[in-house]
Amino acid sequence: MATIRDVAKEAGVSVATVSRHLNNKGYVSEDAKKAIEKAVATLNYAPNQLARSLTTKQTNLLGLLVPDITNPFFPELARAVERTAYKHGYTVVLCNAGETSEKEKHYIRSLQQNYAAGFIVTTNHIKADFYKKLNVPIVALDRNLSDAIPTVTSDNVLGGQLAANYFVEQKVKRILCVRGPLDIDVANDRMHGFEEIMTAHPAIQYDTIVSPFDFEAAKKIAMEHLQFDRDYDAVFASSDASAIGVMKAAESLSIRIPEDVSLVGYDGINIGTLLSPELTTVAQPISTMGERATELLIALIEGKEMATTRVVFPPELVIRNSTTKGTEA
Amino acid sequence: MATIRDVAKEAGVSVATVSRHLNNKGYVSEDAKKAIEKAVATLNYAPNQLARSLTTKQTNLLGLLVPDITNPFFPELARAVERTAYKHGYTVVLCNAGETSEKEKHYIRSLQQNYAAGFIVTTNHIKADFYKKLNVPIVALDRNLSDAIPTVTSDNVLGGQLAANYFVEQKVKRILCVRGPLDIDVANDRMHGFEEIMTAHPAIQYDTIVSPFDFEAAKKIAMEHLQFDRDYDAVFASSDASAIGVMKAAESLSIRIPEDVSLVGYDGINIGTLLSPELTTVAQPISTMGERATELLIALIEGKEMATTRVVFPPELVIRNSTTKGTEA
Repeated sequence: MATIRDVAKEAGVSVATVSRHLNNKGYVSEDAKKAIEKAVATLNYAPNQLARSLTTKQTNLLGLLVPDITNPFFPELARAVERTAYKHGYTVVLCNAGETSEKEKHYIRSLQQNYAAGFIVTTNHIKADFYKKLNVPIVALDRNLSDAIPTVTSDNVLGGQLAANYFVEQKVKRILCVRGPLDIDVANDRMHGFEEIMTAHPAIQYDTIVSPFDFEAAKKIAMEHLQFDRDYDAVFASSDASAIGVMKAAESLSIRIPEDVSLVGYDGINIGTLLSPELTTVAQPISTMGERATELLIALIEGKEMATTRVVFPPELVIRNSTTKGTEA
Repeated sequence: MATIRDVAKEAGVSVATVSRHLNNKGYVSEDAKKAIEKAVATLNYAPNQLARSLTTKQTNLLGLLVPDITNPFFPELARAVERTAYKHGYTVVLCNAGETSEKEKHYIRSLQQNYAAGFIVTTNHIKADFYKKLNVPIVALDRNLSDAIPTVTSDNVLGGQLAANYFVEQKVKRILCVRGPLDIDVANDRMHGFEEIMTAHPAIQYDTIVSPFDFEAAKKIAMEHLQFDRDYDAVFASSDASAIGVMKAAESLSIRIPEDVSLVGYDGINIGTLLSPELTTVAQPISTMGERATELLIALIEGKEMATTRVVFPPELVIRNSTTKGTEA
């Protein structure tokens, strides 16, 4: 079986250069990259990462657990995590942990058995105690798992306030909140921020319904409510995915957005700009959050000193055409 | 360190039951599951999969390589792969191989070093020779890599024909094809099917422009073309992602869909039903394709006899509101 020395000899470069290229760490010239790739192919070389892992008890795999890969927020987050990890020589394995804590535990166990170097967790079902016992570097992203676990979020209370203040400025009289699930802390924070502002403006009425962060579920839930009571000036959906569902429900019921009802979403996913009307939303800095969580995890893995273990980004209100004051065409 | 025997004893069940549950293979009662989970947590048990992998040279990891996780087609495919794999006791690690063959090779190398049991490949950049040399079970999904590699696709030539025949029936006179990249075989097949029908109907004119399967790129490319020449009855976009881009470009240019121009997409992603207007599309059976590819890969891994190694599903034309004959409200 070919060794790294054979590859270096075949490619006419040093062993250190081969190692840098194969581990994707440090500079390697384009010519050297091509020569190494050719030598690896010719010799059918596969370094024994697994044997090495048994000694170091660590691979270059980062596990990224997401609750629902079909909510576009998570692919956008995953792309940022993956790009940042790749730059640092790590490989991201994305696990769609889905609906149950059993599945989530199965994934974590499976990756831990393969000595994943660390985890980024954006899921909700497992209690922090489970993670603390794992004894592996973990960063919570877009979720507060525990004060003991490094966390990257945006300020969801502020996000709820931004939406509420905007409705106050717009002189909205009656709002429907399509809030996220009661067991998801970011959904609760968004609602708390919203309610804080509403408490100071008792003349504004609002009703609240609960929906998962999912297009189709939100469409159905919004339809069921709006068909019996459509007398709202505005809807605040606490994810862009649910806002899209509301948009479709409104269309089915011939409620015009923004003429009859203003709609504000939450997240700032790219597809929001591709809808008709384009979606006004409380935007999180999705890419930056993914990058920062990955850098934090890699610092943890590599035992670096960390200045912060709790990073909170401010969201911002992005006004587009789904609210009456939309300025874009 | 705790062993599987310790866990069985603590949980009051047999070692075989613990093994079935932890490997997610075979029936385990809900009570036993709870007892095992509790014992695993109490004893902080982590079975040494890695040591076992060194002997068997195999883990339960399936690698799924996708070119762009932000194209909703791939998350829908990934969800089906993941659900099927989970049922059979395998864990899917999803790799967003992105834009370059270098990155794709890096992922494959990284997973192979960790003894991934097999790969499902939906990417385009690497030649079949590379995969053949890997000596690991591989299934190509939505791509034709090589006759030697088991493949699950839908009939893309037929799909192109379905779209073209529909335009013929609709008495369309001039069509803009927003086709996929020239180096992607499914994009070529869709175009070939379309052109076959058009050859038989020389009175229908059509122009062709090329766009990646990406919302924003397609919007830009369609804008650049349509602002100078908008005299089309219909647009055929060879992915739903690019169809959404065309929809937005049309909106910006005040071209009404379907009143001025009919729009047909390709893929059948869920979000097509949430757009305004809802998107007429050549739908692939996305979930079924993902399921079948996963079953095929697992059969390969487990050394089972296989009746077919080439599965081709028929696509179907789903007519919605983005074409003049839309029937849904």
